[in-house]
Amino acid sequence: MKSQGQVKNNANIMIDTATALELVLLHGSTLVKTIEINLKDALDYVLAEHVISSMDMPPFRQSAMDGYALHTSDSDTYALVGEVQAGDNSNPDLNSGEAVRIFTGAPVPNAANVVVMQERVRVDGHTIKVEELLIANMNIRPQGEQIKVGDIALTKGTTIKGAHIGFLASLGVTKITVREKPSIAIVVTGNELVNAGTVLSYGEIYESNGAMLTAVLSELGYRNTVVITIKDDYERTKKILGETINNHDVVIVTGGVSVGDYDFVGKALHAIAVQEVFYKVRQKPGKPLFFGKKGETAIFGLPGNPAAALSCFYIYVYPLLKRCEAADQLNLLSILMPLLSDYTVNGDRAQFLKARMQGAGVEILGGQSSAMVRAFGDANALVFLPEHTSEVKKGENVKTIILPNK
Amino acid sequence: MKSQGQVKNNANIMIDTATALELVLLHGSTLVKTIEINLKDALDYVLAEHVISSMDMPPFRQSAMDGYALHTSDSDTYALVGEVQAGDNSNPDLNSGEAVRIFTGAPVPNAANVVVMQERVRVDGHTIKVEELLIANMNIRPQGEQIKVGDIALTKGTTIKGAHIGFLASLGVTKITVREKPSIAIVVTGNELVNAGTVLSYGEIYESNGAMLTAVLSELGYRNTVVITIKDDYERTKKILGETINNHDVVIVTGGVSVGDYDFVGKALHAIAVQEVFYKVRQKPGKPLFFGKKGETAIFGLPGNPAAALSCFYIYVYPLLKRCEAADQLNLLSILMPLLSDYTVNGDRAQFLKARMQGAGVEILGGQSSAMVRAFGDANALVFLPEHTSEVKKGENVKTIILPNK
Repeated sequence: MKSQGQVKNNANIMIDTATALELVLLHGSTLVKTIEINLKDALDYVLAEHVISSMDMPPFRQSAMDGYALHTSDSDTYALVGEVQAGDNSNPDLNSGEAVRIFTGAPVPNAANVVVMQERVRVDGHTIKVEELLIANMNIRPQGEQIKVGDIALTKGTTIKGAHIGFLASLGVTKITVREKPSIAIVVTGNELVNAGTVLSYGEIYESNGAMLTAVLSELGYRNTVVITIKDDYERTKKILGETINNHDVVIVTGGVSVGDYDFVGKALHAIAVQEVFYKVRQKPGKPLFFGKKGETAIFGLPGNPAAALSCFYIYVYPLLKRCEAADQLNLLSILMPLLSDYTVNGDRAQFLKARMQGAGVEILGGQSSAMVRAFGDANALVFLPEHTSEVKKGENVKTIILPNK
Repeated sequence: MKSQGQVKNNANIMIDTATALELVLLHGSTLVKTIEINLKDALDYVLAEHVISSMDMPPFRQSAMDGYALHTSDSDTYALVGEVQAGDNSNPDLNSGEAVRIFTGAPVPNAANVVVMQERVRVDGHTIKVEELLIANMNIRPQGEQIKVGDIALTKGTTIKGAHIGFLASLGVTKITVREKPSIAIVVTGNELVNAGTVLSYGEIYESNGAMLTAVLSELGYRNTVVITIKDDYERTKKILGETINNHDVVIVTGGVSVGDYDFVGKALHAIAVQEVFYKVRQKPGKPLFFGKKGETAIFGLPGNPAAALSCFYIYVYPLLKRCEAADQLNLLSILMPLLSDYTVNGDRAQFLKARMQGAGVEILGGQSSAMVRAFGDANALVFLPEHTSEVKKGENVKTIILPNK
């Protein structure tokens, strides 16, 4: 983030996308603070410590079927001597040749070595006839099959999803220790921006990056974002940026970065001693991406164009947030998929292209202009094409970054 | 949902997965109520009406670059007569051979027909020399390029994502009309289940489906779920189920469905006149899936096994919820991906297998038992294999249902 003269000088030292991401992650500081929270509130938090199981799961030999538990004998006929329901605190003794009625989830008596499903049994009063070949321990879930006491149930660094909550709840876990989430501020700059609800004058547009990034952060589990709007006034910009950086872990500035002579933001960041890590990346969209640090606070300067801002958010800001939380998986999930049509690249920068996975392939969408966020609404993925790609043929595998989806 | 005798009779009329989903969607009632909400709160809601743009976007001819706006002439030298910043309410008149300094996002004067980027211009006092071949309207975003006044900005049925909020905010939209979200209750049954915080007796396990489904619903944008626990007592089950069905749009019962002789839930649903649409699907996991209706309320009986319950939730309950909201996209996103290893199917039911997309393919995970929710934590997809599949070879494309991801 430089005044115009410096921007020109820097044009030659633009870095590549891999270096940019590496630098972001290198400078991302893990937040020290951990908090103990209720498991039910833990969605999207990152585990700060392993969760160790305090029990076997299942905690007893468990019937996997509605049927009959047998103490096997050479005969196919068994005397029915009782019943065990799910939840029963009973462990009836069985002699060879005896059976109990049993239900899914119920504890299998210690003396039983087989469960036969009810469909394979003929019942005649207090006698049953088994019509199946018996195999030792069939239809019995062994104690500790899923996990044993003392084992690691979930490793630190895991971002908690619904299925994790289910698994931990089944182990009787009620509280877990997670990493505090970074405190995030979005700073919106630009004299052309007015808030919705106002009538536009010639030359003005509605501010949308604040609302968009807040919503996207919320989708990703970051729900306490602050949005601050500043007009292009140097002293005020300097003051507000200084305060915001002091009060937050991550500050995302949008706009004001590539506006040349009127780059109050760049000058202000310099004046308040933000250390520039990089400015400008050989990518499209999002060439004028700024990343810097002050103390432990990470500062991004995203392009003002909404589609470029959103693209940079997913590729660089999101991994930084996960890095602050010491998460295992930092990047959005990506896979390789074949392109559904030939694609010719304009220019030689790396590309992040709004795309749609469908069927066995991925289609690059129209409307790739960095000002046009509309295509993002139709996209479910970003296709990444490395620098100096001039053309990709239909059927070629491309890196397909899956956008957060429902 | 039947007592034991009926379950046996019904075993022959199990339906297939496609029919089951079709019946769920056929019986899903669109909620009539729509609500007007603030755009910023609209994430995950479904649009009930088209959003029509009240403006052109951009609302004026907009510079895509920092540079110079020219009224072209035959010479490559232009007289610099002014400046337009982003947000300036000015439209200077230019004669042929004149230029103004201009910045990204600023309104291009009506009299200018070209913007040249600053890197392609040599400035000498009040004169500039252009070092680029000029093409009409270069670096100018036409008024209404993204959308024109009166056009549909977003169609009804769209589930609102962050990018949509950005796009609508840029059009000055502050409120939208969405479909009310269904009111959801989870009813947990089973005598073997105890709540976390209690010490387990022999035969007991911790209840986890309530917490898991609440979390998964929350991930999908449904944040006001009620969880109700009932012990296997017929009269109480009947009373509570009746009240819950009267008070909610969707009721999800877990457990108590396939427990044979002690199926209080099935009997209670029958007694309170819930109409069975289907019971049992030829699938693994989740064979004992129940779906019924009472009035406009949809009732699911999910298997008590957590992994089976979660699988049925994603495949059947989620589309029903989106159907209640009249969403365009009802199902989770699915693609076709090649399997990374050969896979042999046990039995002839259709399979929903926990899987992991990685690189150019998808890997079916271990731990597919319907009691084991652990593998779901590692999964990012479900692989669907149709009925009667006996083997799938490495490299064959399989239907890969992408789990909600961040």
